[in-house]
Amino acid sequence: MNAPETFLAEAADLLGPRGLTRDPEIVRPWLTDWRGRFTGQALALASPASTAEVAALVALCAAHGVPIVPQGGNSGMSGGATPDESGTAIVLSLRRMNAIRRLDTEAREVTCEAGVILQTLHEAAAAEGLRFPLTLGGKGSATIGGLISTNAGGTQVLRHGSMRAQVLGIEAVLADGSVFDALVPLKKDNRGFDLKQLLIGSEGTLGIVTAATLRLVPALVDRAVLWAGLAKVTDTRELLLHAERIAGDRLEGFEILPRHSLQAVLAHMPGTRSPLQGEHEWHALIELAADRSGAEALPALAQELLESAFEAGLVEDATIAANETQAEAFWLLRDEIAPAERAIGPAMQHDISVPVARMAAFIAEASPQVEARFPGTLAVAFGHLGDGNVHFHVLAPTGAVRGDWEANQGKEISSFVHDLVTEWGGSISAEHGIGQLKRDELGRLGDPVHLHLMRAIKQALDPQGLLNPGKLVPLAPGAATF
Amino acid sequence: MNAPETFLAEAADLLGPRGLTRDPEIVRPWLTDWRGRFTGQALALASPASTAEVAALVALCAAHGVPIVPQGGNSGMSGGATPDESGTAIVLSLRRMNAIRRLDTEAREVTCEAGVILQTLHEAAAAEGLRFPLTLGGKGSATIGGLISTNAGGTQVLRHGSMRAQVLGIEAVLADGSVFDALVPLKKDNRGFDLKQLLIGSEGTLGIVTAATLRLVPALVDRAVLWAGLAKVTDTRELLLHAERIAGDRLEGFEILPRHSLQAVLAHMPGTRSPLQGEHEWHALIELAADRSGAEALPALAQELLESAFEAGLVEDATIAANETQAEAFWLLRDEIAPAERAIGPAMQHDISVPVARMAAFIAEASPQVEARFPGTLAVAFGHLGDGNVHFHVLAPTGAVRGDWEANQGKEISSFVHDLVTEWGGSISAEHGIGQLKRDELGRLGDPVHLHLMRAIKQALDPQGLLNPGKLVPLAPGAATF
Repeated sequence: MNAPETFLAEAADLLGPRGLTRDPEIVRPWLTDWRGRFTGQALALASPASTAEVAALVALCAAHGVPIVPQGGNSGMSGGATPDESGTAIVLSLRRMNAIRRLDTEAREVTCEAGVILQTLHEAAAAEGLRFPLTLGGKGSATIGGLISTNAGGTQVLRHGSMRAQVLGIEAVLADGSVFDALVPLKKDNRGFDLKQLLIGSEGTLGIVTAATLRLVPALVDRAVLWAGLAKVTDTRELLLHAERIAGDRLEGFEILPRHSLQAVLAHMPGTRSPLQGEHEWHALIELAADRSGAEALPALAQELLESAFEAGLVEDATIAANETQAEAFWLLRDEIAPAERAIGPAMQHDISVPVARMAAFIAEASPQVEARFPGTLAVAFGHLGDGNVHFHVLAPTGAVRGDWEANQGKEISSFVHDLVTEWGGSISAEHGIGQLKRDELGRLGDPVHLHLMRAIKQALDPQGLLNPGKLVPLAPGAATF
Repeated sequence: MNAPETFLAEAADLLGPRGLTRDPEIVRPWLTDWRGRFTGQALALASPASTAEVAALVALCAAHGVPIVPQGGNSGMSGGATPDESGTAIVLSLRRMNAIRRLDTEAREVTCEAGVILQTLHEAAAAEGLRFPLTLGGKGSATIGGLISTNAGGTQVLRHGSMRAQVLGIEAVLADGSVFDALVPLKKDNRGFDLKQLLIGSEGTLGIVTAATLRLVPALVDRAVLWAGLAKVTDTRELLLHAERIAGDRLEGFEILPRHSLQAVLAHMPGTRSPLQGEHEWHALIELAADRSGAEALPALAQELLESAFEAGLVEDATIAANETQAEAFWLLRDEIAPAERAIGPAMQHDISVPVARMAAFIAEASPQVEARFPGTLAVAFGHLGDGNVHFHVLAPTGAVRGDWEANQGKEISSFVHDLVTEWGGSISAEHGIGQLKRDELGRLGDPVHLHLMRAIKQALDPQGLLNPGKLVPLAPGAATF
């Protein structure tokens, strides 16, 4: 352990006491992912305060062969920010780098350091009459760096795209400690490979994002939130197409819930009630929204959408939220599905996508296949139909013991679901990333040409394999390194 | 020459007489770029008819070490599709691969082979009540593969983005002949590096695009075209911001012309006339457009934009095209600038961008700097202000001899302009790509970290350096290969 001591002494000199700690009490919370599925060990927790410090630290790691696990809010879904159990790596937290360097109201751009928390960015944009159009449940802890490294999604992707679509510029530290500076946003720039695209979604395996320039959009002036009851899942697809035709760019969200999910939320959350009177097999939550340029026409547009959907026989029943309180109540029913389902019993959860046009058919066909293959289970799919992305949960049979059931059945169920998704041309990770949770599955199911390219790029940009080892990029069969 | 003969025999067997030719009459037109600036030699012209044939041919080239110059419509601006003079390479034309494999009206997606001509795609989309939202002057010859490989721009980028924003999926043949298949469009997919992004804009140096899935948008139902006269270039920036505030997503185009450019067009094109009565130093051409969801409100929106711009003192004079004929007449004035300027005399042309917010200031400051440094010249900037991208032309002094002047003065002038652009954080290639025209300049002015990354990726994906050699990626100083 002589080599790490030398490294640690040099790192301590570099970063000072606030920037480097080995205190187990301080380090421990950051060694386990927030869902509690992965726990690792680390040499130390490094918290540099500037891009220059990150660069110097990474150069030091390169010189000493010390692996680096970058970490933002530690709120990822796939264990991508948790070190392995060897204890040879440092955790490199970006949380101290939390400055908003520049917010240009006219140009609608903001340059944030990696540690800026999503909610902080929301508030900073709102204070200028603008909006950062990506949001998700973990907004109180998720950081800009983590959101970029995982190409995060959320509920507003339908209209505004995932994190990739928000990134105008990037600054990152590469494996050798050099700084890749592409922060200045150019709307048009054809000087070769778009390297920032490679860093987005690369989960810290090619470089460490230290800052980014992001786009902002005009603040919403008004929204209309609709709730519809439908007879079958394929009708939700027809309703989505109908909503796109009627509302065009005003369509801000389109989420679906099966009867089971709504009932789970109603049972789990006291005081909630269904927006509609009768029972429906499927529900759609539709949000129309407008900034200044379209706000006036919004109520009429919502009415037109509702009435024409009735006329076309697409919905069994539907309603428009009468006010903002009711609109929030509608959204709460959607947002509480995951905890409500968890309260019922164990489940295997899958974050999957197929082409948008095929998702309703996938749900209709795959659900009974899963239930037939694993008797007693219930397949429940809900979420972002407009993105072709649902959370596909397989609920355990009644009486299954939490922990045991997942350990015994989970892997087989997930493999079955992932096989189905792959057959349908879909993705085993729509928005949560690969991390360490799905690396083996990616290696098993990924296109060999894709995997070969990923390995070649990883090897070229991080030849020592020090950037977030064990994450994302599957090793070649039988290989110990890339 | 034994080795090439073996290769050629095998290639002829593979592709048949329609797929491989050495006939100088047939090959010759494809050895010079359409602007006539570059001419090379080639072993043969290969025209495979399918992805499988491209893959087999590339594998054959890899085995024999034969360089490949991919070519679409041969209408590029930077010599990126022209072979060098060694005659060792084959030109690989994608023009026979011109099938539209699938057009899904509901999903608004189209899968095209690389050789589909842009105008053909426009027509196919229009026949289904849809629109492919990227267009440019060379639409009658430019192919989808070329547009992707150069990440083409055009006049609709402000609202719809460049080619990158239209690409939902890609199929490409890699340097070893393997096929990268990512044609199935997934709106959300976080399975690691987004490799299709790396291929877009890589000018055939990392792979050969053989097909793509592209997005379509609803057909336009109506447009309003405005013409404004302004006192100075910085006012055009204010007017752009004003138009964005008023029109939001309805703003489809924002182009600027200096007085000199308008006068050049009026002198060059009989029958044209200025949309406004008086003389103005600057002109802005603004297009608002709407599909079904916003068409009704469009005339009122155009009127509001015009009146509020007057009230705010942003424009000296302005008018709205009374009908579609007039709207086309307005656009003609913009589209004919380049030929009109060429008729006047020699000029050095630069396709540059700076941050959108800084372009007006750049024009105001850089133009007199250029004119002072090169007495007698006139700096003329026109084009896509809304994208931070203008065509920055430096016109020769009166009496300069075409050919001689460019040869004697051109390089120094371009270097001076590129230095200025780089100082302003901009790009020496906004939309035309690097090709062989600007490779040395990219090597001279590019960020060393960017260049290093590009070389590392090129080396990793094309270790033999056979894909479009001599294009885009600058060699390291003193190096013969990557």
